[in-house]
Amino acid sequence: MPEISIKGTTMPESPIRKLVPYADIATKKGKKIYYLNIGQPDIETPKKAIEAVKKTDLDILAYSPSQGFESYREKLANYYQRSGLSISANDLIVTTGGSEALLFAMGCITDPGDEVIIPEPFYANYNGFATASGVTVKAVQSKIEDNFALPPISEFEKLITDKTKAILVCNPGNPTGYLYTEDEINQLADLAIKYDLFILADEVYREFAYDGAVHHSIMSVERLHNHAIMIDSVSKRYSMCGARIGCLASKNKAFMAAAMKFAQARLSPPTFAQIAAEAATETPDEYFNEVIDEYVHRRNTLIEGLKDIEGIKIAVPKGAFYCTVDLPIEDAEDFAKWLLSDFDFDGETVMVAPAGGFYSTEGAGKSQIRIAYVLNINALKRAIKILKKALDVYPKS
Amino acid sequence: MPEISIKGTTMPESPIRKLVPYADIATKKGKKIYYLNIGQPDIETPKKAIEAVKKTDLDILAYSPSQGFESYREKLANYYQRSGLSISANDLIVTTGGSEALLFAMGCITDPGDEVIIPEPFYANYNGFATASGVTVKAVQSKIEDNFALPPISEFEKLITDKTKAILVCNPGNPTGYLYTEDEINQLADLAIKYDLFILADEVYREFAYDGAVHHSIMSVERLHNHAIMIDSVSKRYSMCGARIGCLASKNKAFMAAAMKFAQARLSPPTFAQIAAEAATETPDEYFNEVIDEYVHRRNTLIEGLKDIEGIKIAVPKGAFYCTVDLPIEDAEDFAKWLLSDFDFDGETVMVAPAGGFYSTEGAGKSQIRIAYVLNINALKRAIKILKKALDVYPKS
Repeated sequence: MPEISIKGTTMPESPIRKLVPYADIATKKGKKIYYLNIGQPDIETPKKAIEAVKKTDLDILAYSPSQGFESYREKLANYYQRSGLSISANDLIVTTGGSEALLFAMGCITDPGDEVIIPEPFYANYNGFATASGVTVKAVQSKIEDNFALPPISEFEKLITDKTKAILVCNPGNPTGYLYTEDEINQLADLAIKYDLFILADEVYREFAYDGAVHHSIMSVERLHNHAIMIDSVSKRYSMCGARIGCLASKNKAFMAAAMKFAQARLSPPTFAQIAAEAATETPDEYFNEVIDEYVHRRNTLIEGLKDIEGIKIAVPKGAFYCTVDLPIEDAEDFAKWLLSDFDFDGETVMVAPAGGFYSTEGAGKSQIRIAYVLNINALKRAIKILKKALDVYPKS
Repeated sequence: MPEISIKGTTMPESPIRKLVPYADIATKKGKKIYYLNIGQPDIETPKKAIEAVKKTDLDILAYSPSQGFESYREKLANYYQRSGLSISANDLIVTTGGSEALLFAMGCITDPGDEVIIPEPFYANYNGFATASGVTVKAVQSKIEDNFALPPISEFEKLITDKTKAILVCNPGNPTGYLYTEDEINQLADLAIKYDLFILADEVYREFAYDGAVHHSIMSVERLHNHAIMIDSVSKRYSMCGARIGCLASKNKAFMAAAMKFAQARLSPPTFAQIAAEAATETPDEYFNEVIDEYVHRRNTLIEGLKDIEGIKIAVPKGAFYCTVDLPIEDAEDFAKWLLSDFDFDGETVMVAPAGGFYSTEGAGKSQIRIAYVLNINALKRAIKILKKALDVYPKS
């Protein structure tokens, strides 16, 4: 029998997927599970986006251009311009989700064996895309005590070698909820220019900035135009994760020409979903205001509910809809499994993401979990209550 | 400025994309172009598939499971069972087009530097997926004089090294239109077992077999179950290229487990398109009968129209909707450009794909073109007439 080679077997498993068998146990036992582990929002997709697809009148569901429909790229550019970014339709390639945008970007700027530096904890699938591209991830640790702010630039500099091609950041952060300040973005820009590196900025949560904080896009730094690559997606912005529409934005023409070859090799992004995404660009600001009010309410409810747990550390999120907390336990993965397989409170339990899988450094974040506050307020309150009860009775050793 | 690394710049450009600037010239000059260069069928998508999407009643366009909707995989498995293949829903991963299925397969079974053997000419984007996966393509030449039948197995054996992980075939072939016989599939199976290789079979044209010929799927060979990986797609079958729904099928559990990690890293295939693809599985046989009758009529019209060109060699296609012909000219790429930029017949011209780009061997296929017979009969007749006129006046040196 042919041996499956290293690449396929070393492809890392998502920290959440590991829990699926335990969730199955909980379900078999008839427990109700509150899912705090996944970033699938319960917010409604703008009706206009769904309606646009239902109103289509197609005889042939044909390929779109590899770069994406021009009409969509125009409206998307316009959306960025409204938030002050000078991005034109030609600076954009429509991709199949932010995932594909990341794969294209890594494919274009690295050769197998090259390195990308990422502040950890980071979105676990970055490991998967790096493995698929043969790229080595080097991690700089950010600290829960600083709410996961940008680590000192000197820490990045220690890791830079001939093989370093880029620094990848997620802003606002998954799983941290941290929103980089203008000063931090400028520090990254200076670093990129000093060492001739790309900055890959995953800004899929760009709309989700709270408490009056402003999102500073990597594309807003003019001196960085040849170094900046933005990854974006409509998944979270319009709660349309299933569309699988993202984009790649850059002013670097050589990069975009290389990325177009990747885009052409896979022919085109999905047609129906582009129609939905195009219509979604016309979503009025009130939609976001309501959504953001709701998330702020949820975040506040979560923080309020958690803060009196003895020994807890909370990184208060300023964006996205994740909160990483350090629990007074030793092994969050064991705790997460135990919640599903052994614990219940009146027949109910919660599923959380152990944060260790969001770290690249072995053993880091072992007592941390990521909570996605994507449930409505009542469900969230109940989930917090269950989590607290669980911590009370969880066997400490 | 950061340098774009080798990988991005060595990503091969599609042989068809190279012609786009020349097509722009033709359009600017006001010429009408008959497109014989692309595999975008003019056949209508089954109405049921489009209607299923229009009838959806979704509040949230959510992620589907990474493996694809179970309901779709069940119906897809049933479709394969109807054509005699023992494929179950668990042997399938739904992908974003056949393209992604190929990328996953290459990612799972190779490490950078590994080799895949492919009979040439082959679908040009295989080069792109190989480059993206860091894989080296080794080509075995098939011959137009044999209608591009499977080359002798001894030719494959000459290329097998420690780095060889798989043999990739397209059946029926793009750009050849060749349909492998049962004997040829068995020869490949013996080879794979002898050397412990995977057979990757791109069967996206599996429905398009003509003249009573039967398609022999790689999945039909029972002794090959651990070695066989099938790539499929709904793009051509139901003329829904823009859906971007394909699949990966294999009975090799270790391979499927590795492929699931790739699937999980990119979260899910598109939701709307899966709804369309699921409905499409209920397309009645009459749809295919009509479509196949139409393609046979087109193929016959094409062959009839071309055969009296002096010095032409035609590989008569038994499947798919491509025909590769050798023209009495030196450089088909130059000819294809000239057709667009310098030639017209009553204000009309044709766009063809130079076949050199479908060969991996430098200089091979230089006088060949691929014709996609995806136009209706009248347009096809006119296009052939224009092509003949062009060959009459094309400056021979």
